[in-house]
Amino acid sequence: MRQFMDDDFLLGSDTAKKLFEQVRDLPILDYHCHLSPKEIWENKPFTDVTDLMLGGDHYKWRLMLANGAPEELIYPVRKGDPKARFRAYAQALSYAPGNPLFHWTHLELQRVFGIRTILTEDTADGIYDETKALLAKPEYLPRALIRRFRVEVVCTTDDPADSLEYHRLLAGEDLGFRVLPTFRPDRFLYPERTPFLSAVAELEKASGKKIGSYRDLVNVLEERAAFFASMGCRLSDHSLEFVPWSPATDEQIEAVFASATAGNIPDESACRAYRTRLMTDLGRIYSENDWAMQLHLSAMRNNSTRKFGEYGADSGFDSMDDPLVARNLSRLLDAMDRDGRLPRTILYSLNPKDNYTLASLLGNFQASGVPGKIQLGSGWWFNDQLPGMIDQMTTLASVGLLGRFVGMLTDSRSFISYPRHEYFRRILCNLIGSWVENGEFPDDPKLLTRIVQGVSYENAKAYFRF
Amino acid sequence: MRQFMDDDFLLGSDTAKKLFEQVRDLPILDYHCHLSPKEIWENKPFTDVTDLMLGGDHYKWRLMLANGAPEELIYPVRKGDPKARFRAYAQALSYAPGNPLFHWTHLELQRVFGIRTILTEDTADGIYDETKALLAKPEYLPRALIRRFRVEVVCTTDDPADSLEYHRLLAGEDLGFRVLPTFRPDRFLYPERTPFLSAVAELEKASGKKIGSYRDLVNVLEERAAFFASMGCRLSDHSLEFVPWSPATDEQIEAVFASATAGNIPDESACRAYRTRLMTDLGRIYSENDWAMQLHLSAMRNNSTRKFGEYGADSGFDSMDDPLVARNLSRLLDAMDRDGRLPRTILYSLNPKDNYTLASLLGNFQASGVPGKIQLGSGWWFNDQLPGMIDQMTTLASVGLLGRFVGMLTDSRSFISYPRHEYFRRILCNLIGSWVENGEFPDDPKLLTRIVQGVSYENAKAYFRF
Amino acid sequence: MRQFMDDDFLLGSDTAKKLFEQVRDLPILDYHCHLSPKEIWENKPFTDVTDLMLGGDHYKWRLMLANGAPEELIYPVRKGDPKARFRAYAQALSYAPGNPLFHWTHLELQRVFGIRTILTEDTADGIYDETKALLAKPEYLPRALIRRFRVEVVCTTDDPADSLEYHRLLAGEDLGFRVLPTFRPDRFLYPERTPFLSAVAELEKASGKKIGSYRDLVNVLEERAAFFASMGCRLSDHSLEFVPWSPATDEQIEAVFASATAGNIPDESACRAYRTRLMTDLGRIYSENDWAMQLHLSAMRNNSTRKFGEYGADSGFDSMDDPLVARNLSRLLDAMDRDGRLPRTILYSLNPKDNYTLASLLGNFQASGVPGKIQLGSGWWFNDQLPGMIDQMTTLASVGLLGRFVGMLTDSRSFISYPRHEYFRRILCNLIGSWVENGEFPDDPKLLTRIVQGVSYENAKAYFRF
Repeated sequence: MRQFMDDDFLLGSDTAKKLFEQVRDLPILDYHCHLSPKEIWENKPFTDVTDLMLGGDHYKWRLMLANGAPEELIYPVRKGDPKARFRAYAQALSYAPGNPLFHWTHLELQRVFGIRTILTEDTADGIYDETKALLAKPEYLPRALIRRFRVEVVCTTDDPADSLEYHRLLAGEDLGFRVLPTFRPDRFLYPERTPFLSAVAELEKASGKKIGSYRDLVNVLEERAAFFASMGCRLSDHSLEFVPWSPATDEQIEAVFASATAGNIPDESACRAYRTRLMTDLGRIYSENDWAMQLHLSAMRNNSTRKFGEYGADSGFDSMDDPLVARNLSRLLDAMDRDGRLPRTILYSLNPKDNYTLASLLGNFQASGVPGKIQLGSGWWFNDQLPGMIDQMTTLASVGLLGRFVGMLTDSRSFISYPRHEYFRRILCNLIGSWVENGEFPDDPKLLTRIVQGVSYENAKAYFRF
Repeated sequence: MRQFMDDDFLLGSDTAKKLFEQVRDLPILDYHCHLSPKEIWENKPFTDVTDLMLGGDHYKWRLMLANGAPEELIYPVRKGDPKARFRAYAQALSYAPGNPLFHWTHLELQRVFGIRTILTEDTADGIYDETKALLAKPEYLPRALIRRFRVEVVCTTDDPADSLEYHRLLAGEDLGFRVLPTFRPDRFLYPERTPFLSAVAELEKASGKKIGSYRDLVNVLEERAAFFASMGCRLSDHSLEFVPWSPATDEQIEAVFASATAGNIPDESACRAYRTRLMTDLGRIYSENDWAMQLHLSAMRNNSTRKFGEYGADSGFDSMDDPLVARNLSRLLDAMDRDGRLPRTILYSLNPKDNYTLASLLGNFQASGVPGKIQLGSGWWFNDQLPGMIDQMTTLASVGLLGRFVGMLTDSRSFISYPRHEYFRRILCNLIGSWVENGEFPDDPKLLTRIVQGVSYENAKAYFRF
Repeated sequence: MRQFMDDDFLLGSDTAKKLFEQVRDLPILDYHCHLSPKEIWENKPFTDVTDLMLGGDHYKWRLMLANGAPEELIYPVRKGDPKARFRAYAQALSYAPGNPLFHWTHLELQRVFGIRTILTEDTADGIYDETKALLAKPEYLPRALIRRFRVEVVCTTDDPADSLEYHRLLAGEDLGFRVLPTFRPDRFLYPERTPFLSAVAELEKASGKKIGSYRDLVNVLEERAAFFASMGCRLSDHSLEFVPWSPATDEQIEAVFASATAGNIPDESACRAYRTRLMTDLGRIYSENDWAMQLHLSAMRNNSTRKFGEYGADSGFDSMDDPLVARNLSRLLDAMDRDGRLPRTILYSLNPKDNYTLASLLGNFQASGVPGKIQLGSGWWFNDQLPGMIDQMTTLASVGLLGRFVGMLTDSRSFISYPRHEYFRRILCNLIGSWVENGEFPDDPKLLTRIVQGVSYENAKAYFRF
């Protein structure tokens, strides 16, 4: 029996261990996350491990609710006793064999605090006290934590109307890492939803331009993209619950825009046409900026009306949708590709039933000159776990080039989620190591090093031009 | 090489064996099956192993037909020679490596009869003769078989109009186990189908009340639920081919009911609205009774018109449907939850492509005070097999709390299907044992015992208040 | 560590090795491929390994494009330097751990040329030169290659209007193998597409009959089927992007045909009705000829408008679609079965999410007298790889009879794809061997030999009446 989470954690063979040696100390390029640039700027200390771990992590809240914990011990706004909250989390975790939180939490305790005790109801209070003392030290400030994990680049997620004020401030500091913005124009894609009007108003304010038409909107978004590019932006990001595909004339699109800005709610088919057009226009903008376009598909959000009312969005009440994706996605990408305007693209679906569909679909739009131009994104959200990552990599390998994969990201709101990159690298090395051990791939150091270092670091560096 | 199906069957490590020791002798709570309470009451002996194994088991008939067996050797109504029938089954089985029937049948031979011979064409006649002698003994009567497997509770499946006469009779006996009813109002959910009118008529008779409106129907169902509760009922059960979500006014629902009881067939959208409403009303009733609601999704039944004509329903001509489930199911559960009337719920889909969708969706509706309130049901029907169970448990573990799972049920019409609980426990212990051996979960006896005993027995006992 | 691709490649246990010994030298029945009968007749030598491997294989082109290779090194029409093309392929391959092309290519080098060097950028030129010399020898001519792999039967894929001239010529030769036609009437199924009118015209010419109505069309197809049967045809083949189910009257079907032959494009629902009818009529024809009907579902073809314009169909721009399949497929098969006219049927879906749906659905239409009458096809196209084959076989085993499976086919345009049969047999033997080693299936030589020899050879021989 192996010790729980020892140095060889998840490395089942000598080859796996040897491969991991080659990537263990590589820097981290965290090209997609939800860290707050303001919080990085402010660099405030964490009160305690509860603040650090349960402050904003809806994955953990969700686990606690599944365990039947009282809501006052789950949600920060309920201001429950921090020590009791940490204990309630420990209890939930003890029923969670096979859950990524079990591994992430213990990796965080080991790598951040050097604590190797198993977190249970019995040990929670002791760990709380021990970490409380540590968190008062300067090496536990947000920026220090980022540096500790050898993070070179952090890409945040930002609205086109954002001033990028904190990015500007951070760029002026000697941080030891770069904080780059990501262009996420989701609010502009749903003219039927409440945030649309305020989004347009904010964009007018940010740009100092009147947006009186769809054409104006695209022009201003293009200007904002240029501004984002000047601030180091290399990626865009989109959440598409359904992939739109419904071409329409300029006049029809302008009519949708005019109707929405006049305060009406355009009908569903009009909105689909609008989204189709805006996505193709944005694709062109990204292509011209040589950015990567991230498409996050098939999430279903805020499913509990009651909990949304109490706790708002991003509180742990989201799940996988199961729409059909192949036809529309293929046509949308083809529309961009036909005009030579398809940017580098990363496809993520929240539903793993789409893994093969996407992995095969993206092969239709690869291109000379950019290895792995269209990517199957790393296991996202509910899929960011051991079998989920193996499934994503095996699927990609089976129908494409695993060696050209741009690899891991945290997608996190937490300052201590970087051990997930280590977790990913272990799984990658173990997977490829098992193939070598089994005689399914040659034990060729040159090929193997290029692949594991590529997927862990080099591919992303080249692909995003970091 | 391991011996076929020896004591350590499916237990691949020392930890797995140790864990299994802790659950091997726990009693069985068979919270969902299709045993006939009348047959338990009558307690008639089985004629022979053909009667026992092939009397009503459409899983086995289906396997024989896939093997090209003559229909007179498959279906009991064709009254083929029992010995030849058993031999034909043995032949089909010998082409079935990897099929659960191979394991189930041999577990049944071992555990019921103490026979360790492999069943093949060559051995079938000998086994037929040997078991024939045994089945004449009192310890092979239905009730004795249930007791032999340490079954504490058997939950049958019953129509709301059922008098529960046999449940009453059985409750008066010293059986050594309890036989509880389950409330299954499927006939009332499909006003467009033939059984609807007779179901309403039978319910009027059973309740002694006139059912002249939808409101009356709900009131009478509520009364019947109270009666079922008084007889020990703890669960309801539903087969939903498509999950309905289509809210409507009281007037519209009453109009559907009036039209259907007048002998018309309401159109599809009217029926969907009716089903949406009745499901939410039933959810409230279950919630008030503190019952668990089981939803069985995505079955496609009676697909062979020819065979349905010859052999009727439940004869082995059903399969997985592949409808979209996420949106409607989310809304239906949310509608109940919004009013604080969502009961404990167990979600099963016949199509394993839905496992992740359901496992993530149910997390949106968990609640304080009831650990694992919303459950991902154990691998159902075609998924009740080795890789299917591993997939169900791994999926649940990856996005939820495996340690709060209520575990296995037989869903069977057979008196000797209880070794499936043993089969499940072996798979559970092997899965968790492999994580421990691999350093993925700590070797902590307290945590491990709580989990494996919980999933095997304790969780169901608490969840269903047995 | 095992050597890369040694004699025991993929055989992880002694039982697996023992089983493989029993099938290693069995002949090959390649019951579905895309070899050109003309090329078999002409028997022209290959120029070089680039011609042999990259001449028409869009799997390989696709891999190279994913690697960012220049198009002139990918597509033969661009007439790039052959040596540079082979080197570019080698480079792409070196990023492809886990991809079937890595295994196929090295199996081809080993089995065709006896070369055990790993193909990389560094070794590509040497291998190019070494194979160039070998390919000039007579034992590397197309027919000699087919014989080398002990192929007994090659089933090509042919249009009903085809004269089968080359099949006739080949039948007159002493080849050492048989080349049989397959009836593939796809062009006649899509009255809304361009090839329909020319297909009807060619069929009129081939048959010497006027086709003035749908009824005429069916009659002529029936005659052509009789002609194909006389030439040894045993299978038909269909690509159905969506499974049609929409019954209509004779008059409606004739109206669709009349409209289409008058040069109109019938609307979608009319075309669905037409396809439903033609499929059921064809099913009857196949049933009367005692043929197997192959249905290939859920492909999405020619997704890149730009690349289709440059390189045409079958150039590597196809992928998995994700439509719903269960309901319509069930009804279509039931319509044939109801009239006793359902032929032997093999179901393939390009999307592996359908594996369980199909494997369970086909069980509804099995029949006495034909073991495994309805088959789950071997992992097709993107699924023709190690995890894909394991998934297909495990799924089939879990809900049906693996021992009655008709096994592998190449589906290939290449004369050296036969090692895929060896690959399949290794995976089959390893899978069943692992069950035996693990105590999940008895170590019974009689049962095991019957199963592995059946799936590798005997089942197909009986099923297709070769």
